[in-house]
Amino acid sequence: MRFSQAFIPTLRDDPADAEVVSHRLMLRAGLIRKVAAGVYTYLPLAWRSIRKAERIIREEMTAAGAQEVRMPAVQPAELWKESGRWDVYGRELLRLKDRHDREFCVGPTHEEVVTDLVRGEVRSYRQLPLNLFQIQTKFRDEIRPRFGLMRGREFIMKDGYSFDADTAGAEVTYRAMEAAYHRIFARMGLTFRAVEADTGQIGGSFSHEFMVLAETGEDDVVHCTACDYAANREKAEARVAVPDKRDTPDLQTVPTPGLTAVDAVAVALGTAPERLIKTLLFATGGDGDDAFAAVLIRGDREVNEVKLAGLLGDGARLADEADVARLTGAPAGFSGPVGLTGVRVIADRTAAGLTDAVTGANAADAHHVHVLPGRDFALSETADLDTAGAGDGCPRCADGTLAVRRGIEAGHIFMLGTKYSDTMQATFLDPEGRPQPFVMGCYGIGVGRSVAAAIEQNHDDRGIIWPMALAPFHALVVAMNVKSDPVRQAAEGLYAALGAAGVEALYDDRPERAGVKLTDGELLGIPLQVIVGDRGVERGVCEVKARATGDTREVPLADAAAEVRRMVDAALAGRGAGGAGA
Amino acid sequence: MRFSQAFIPTLRDDPADAEVVSHRLMLRAGLIRKVAAGVYTYLPLAWRSIRKAERIIREEMTAAGAQEVRMPAVQPAELWKESGRWDVYGRELLRLKDRHDREFCVGPTHEEVVTDLVRGEVRSYRQLPLNLFQIQTKFRDEIRPRFGLMRGREFIMKDGYSFDADTAGAEVTYRAMEAAYHRIFARMGLTFRAVEADTGQIGGSFSHEFMVLAETGEDDVVHCTACDYAANREKAEARVAVPDKRDTPDLQTVPTPGLTAVDAVAVALGTAPERLIKTLLFATGGDGDDAFAAVLIRGDREVNEVKLAGLLGDGARLADEADVARLTGAPAGFSGPVGLTGVRVIADRTAAGLTDAVTGANAADAHHVHVLPGRDFALSETADLDTAGAGDGCPRCADGTLAVRRGIEAGHIFMLGTKYSDTMQATFLDPEGRPQPFVMGCYGIGVGRSVAAAIEQNHDDRGIIWPMALAPFHALVVAMNVKSDPVRQAAEGLYAALGAAGVEALYDDRPERAGVKLTDGELLGIPLQVIVGDRGVERGVCEVKARATGDTREVPLADAAAEVRRMVDAALAGRGAGGAGA
Repeated sequence: MRFSQAFIPTLRDDPADAEVVSHRLMLRAGLIRKVAAGVYTYLPLAWRSIRKAERIIREEMTAAGAQEVRMPAVQPAELWKESGRWDVYGRELLRLKDRHDREFCVGPTHEEVVTDLVRGEVRSYRQLPLNLFQIQTKFRDEIRPRFGLMRGREFIMKDGYSFDADTAGAEVTYRAMEAAYHRIFARMGLTFRAVEADTGQIGGSFSHEFMVLAETGEDDVVHCTACDYAANREKAEARVAVPDKRDTPDLQTVPTPGLTAVDAVAVALGTAPERLIKTLLFATGGDGDDAFAAVLIRGDREVNEVKLAGLLGDGARLADEADVARLTGAPAGFSGPVGLTGVRVIADRTAAGLTDAVTGANAADAHHVHVLPGRDFALSETADLDTAGAGDGCPRCADGTLAVRRGIEAGHIFMLGTKYSDTMQATFLDPEGRPQPFVMGCYGIGVGRSVAAAIEQNHDDRGIIWPMALAPFHALVVAMNVKSDPVRQAAEGLYAALGAAGVEALYDDRPERAGVKLTDGELLGIPLQVIVGDRGVERGVCEVKARATGDTREVPLADAAAEVRRMVDAALAGRGAGGAGA
Repeated sequence: MRFSQAFIPTLRDDPADAEVVSHRLMLRAGLIRKVAAGVYTYLPLAWRSIRKAERIIREEMTAAGAQEVRMPAVQPAELWKESGRWDVYGRELLRLKDRHDREFCVGPTHEEVVTDLVRGEVRSYRQLPLNLFQIQTKFRDEIRPRFGLMRGREFIMKDGYSFDADTAGAEVTYRAMEAAYHRIFARMGLTFRAVEADTGQIGGSFSHEFMVLAETGEDDVVHCTACDYAANREKAEARVAVPDKRDTPDLQTVPTPGLTAVDAVAVALGTAPERLIKTLLFATGGDGDDAFAAVLIRGDREVNEVKLAGLLGDGARLADEADVARLTGAPAGFSGPVGLTGVRVIADRTAAGLTDAVTGANAADAHHVHVLPGRDFALSETADLDTAGAGDGCPRCADGTLAVRRGIEAGHIFMLGTKYSDTMQATFLDPEGRPQPFVMGCYGIGVGRSVAAAIEQNHDDRGIIWPMALAPFHALVVAMNVKSDPVRQAAEGLYAALGAAGVEALYDDRPERAGVKLTDGELLGIPLQVIVGDRGVERGVCEVKARATGDTREVPLADAAAEVRRMVDAALAGRGAGGAGA
């Protein structure tokens, strides 16, 4: 493509309202333009990258046995009412009525439609497994769309849904999808981690996220430095060293005037924060005994809000001062499990395992010491509500230590189980002729977000550094001065030779100053730059420069197309992401 | 793909609610399923065909200089209000409000969004021409969606928009698109005509439709049997033989008691219907003199409703008896232009050219004879409001006669001119630095409708007959009996060999009876069938059958893959649409 004819409206200056680097660079490099909040037009360069991502996804999904379909974007409300999500999905669901006043939504996801399809067509276990996917524009009416394609309202998603006859089969399918996702993100040229994740609103029994690692990511990826364990911080477990077991004398109450902070209490009582049990009261929005819950966690640990929401529901909030006072008889900071009634008590595993512990005494300015869980209060319910962090022990291996990196959720796979087939009565007949619910999985990839994440992961202060597989073009041919006949002729020849060699080349034939072209070249981030200038052409050479490293080599004009082809192939095969070195 | 693993839910019986053949066959062959009225899921086979159509479109559009983008499906109302279409588009526009109560629509077309994009980015004539297209899911809330993909509410469309600096440039672009459309429909393997068409609601100065010819088409394609002229009946002109010119005596009024029908009047007055002028009164919904219009047309011709709507607006309706009586002083059937006042009078060209004509006398039971247009009434406004039909003369060539065929509108291109750039104030600076409105064109292809039209055009009573270019698979390998080891081994070998030869093969490996498989094969309409049975395998041969013709040949198993490859290539190159003959 000739730059002079291409629609690449680059911007000289940073746009005002772009908060993250991918958003800023996608606007500046002429990749996207905003149409409404969280709603964008993809311009030709972005669309080329999106289509490359789609192709990789499509090939790997198909190779893994999934079949491509296309379900409608506009979905009838009846199906959502049947699954129960019409009422719970909230305002993110873009609802509308057609001319006959029938209710519809613009689909944010397609569990309902696909379940309805399959229950209508699949009658027998012989027709299973079945794995369907689509690549489609979705809409989620985010309350605060931001960050360009990272958190838009309208977005392009690959969503897949599998149907198996039993859990064992569903797990085989799930693992095949997991493996396909590894291949997909590897082929995209991204550095990523597959992590254990919370199942959230989609539901189901377990799930993995595919996190593109980038400092600007919104998620914390907790991973072991010794083994394969990795999880979203929302879900991550830690192996927490247990303080030495002690015989626990009889419980005593001691004065702790004005001391509510863990560290202060520990110092005052001559003990360590890891011997304290924090008691946090939450209002759960439930009735009676379920209206409040007390969560016990070790003094040096923090409650994980997502795990808590999984246990208590999304509505759980820290109880206010008045409720704390009413329930414990004491101000906040002196709560404790001993003698606490009328609330559900949940002990995090770090608290449940303590001996000779300290807790609040449910009386102002007082704590209990020599507390033994199970003796001094009932351990009726324990759970993992702990927040894993850097330096914690790995929950999977004996010696590993956890580290934390930032990540961008680009893919998410869920073992749904029978959540949707149960509510929507989607069944098949097993070999004995008995109706059984389909065991389902679902598998999403944010296509636009993957492309944006590639930029978040790969850029510098001059612009984008595309991985070869997602780059809108493989190579940028820069004619430094199109008014020079030798330069223009050499560049035109190179552009033609690259085309003949199957290299996707963007040819900057614009009558602009060399500096403008080189600056735009850095901004656009095409992996390989082929720079054709007067002095080189005199000597029969051009410069081949790798955008990622800046490495530059002189290459004879006659060899340049073949050399670039070789470098493109090497980069696509994963042997160096566009490095100019041999 | 193995049939046993493919999601191809064929139906034994015709579905009840499918009125047209493509709808019926797409349901029966397991291509689509209805989700709501006019809203379908495309199953894997249909999706493969759609993607093939998309690919052809994409390649030809790109080759013709258009650049692919993706605009949002959900569009802000502001843009539609700016163009004025928010108020006039009516209930076909699917309107909705987001969580912040802002108005949006699900886009049925994208003139507004693309004009807004281009006016924001293109400042200079140097950046023109610019031609952008997308392939996208649209929604039009049809009042009576029907005929499956032929008239759905949600549908896949290629829509393109061009921006030029002047009319001459826009016409060059328009012709390039017209040529690209010819290539697209030819590559799809369809028999089609490009016809002159009405511009309708999209507007603009002229347009062409690409009509896939099929007996079941909803449109009439009027075409010359001698030259290239072709037009939608809505727009078609006819060269109508003019009755011999006569000197016209003075006007006389004659009694025609009870005679209102053209033929009866002609017989009673001893003249021919082509010497009568019919006077039809229409209520236009306008004010004062514009509230009604009288249309004069020759007695043997019919008024074309679409041409009439183009002149009088969509709201024009035949005036009721009371209005006719009030305006003419006579019952309907005796209206005439002589002395008619208070209404706009429009003479069709066939009426304007008459001599010695007969008209109603604006009095009960009376006609005027010896009427001369221009002498006895003013010819203030003439127009072409005539309906062309089979047997009429061609308006373009001297000798040609018109014929009529049925067609399906699969593509439509419009010279928009400055309709949208004027209303939306989309301008660029010309070489003198003066702002000028973009001269626009727009170019649509119904992708799903093209695929459905391929079926309307190519089927028999056993099922679909895919053109090779749109067929979901090139070849169907039928193992007549998978329980026979030699048959299964031969079929598996052939399936592998076809894959190695790059032939897209569907392998019917199902443990079904041979009859079921052959029936399904005819229904699915894969162009080439490779039938592997016991007796053939004993002799080392299979049968290669062309679905279109039924021609069957024995081919040695060892040669079959190469032979099928050759036949596929020949069909794709347009040398026989899958015929089995050499």
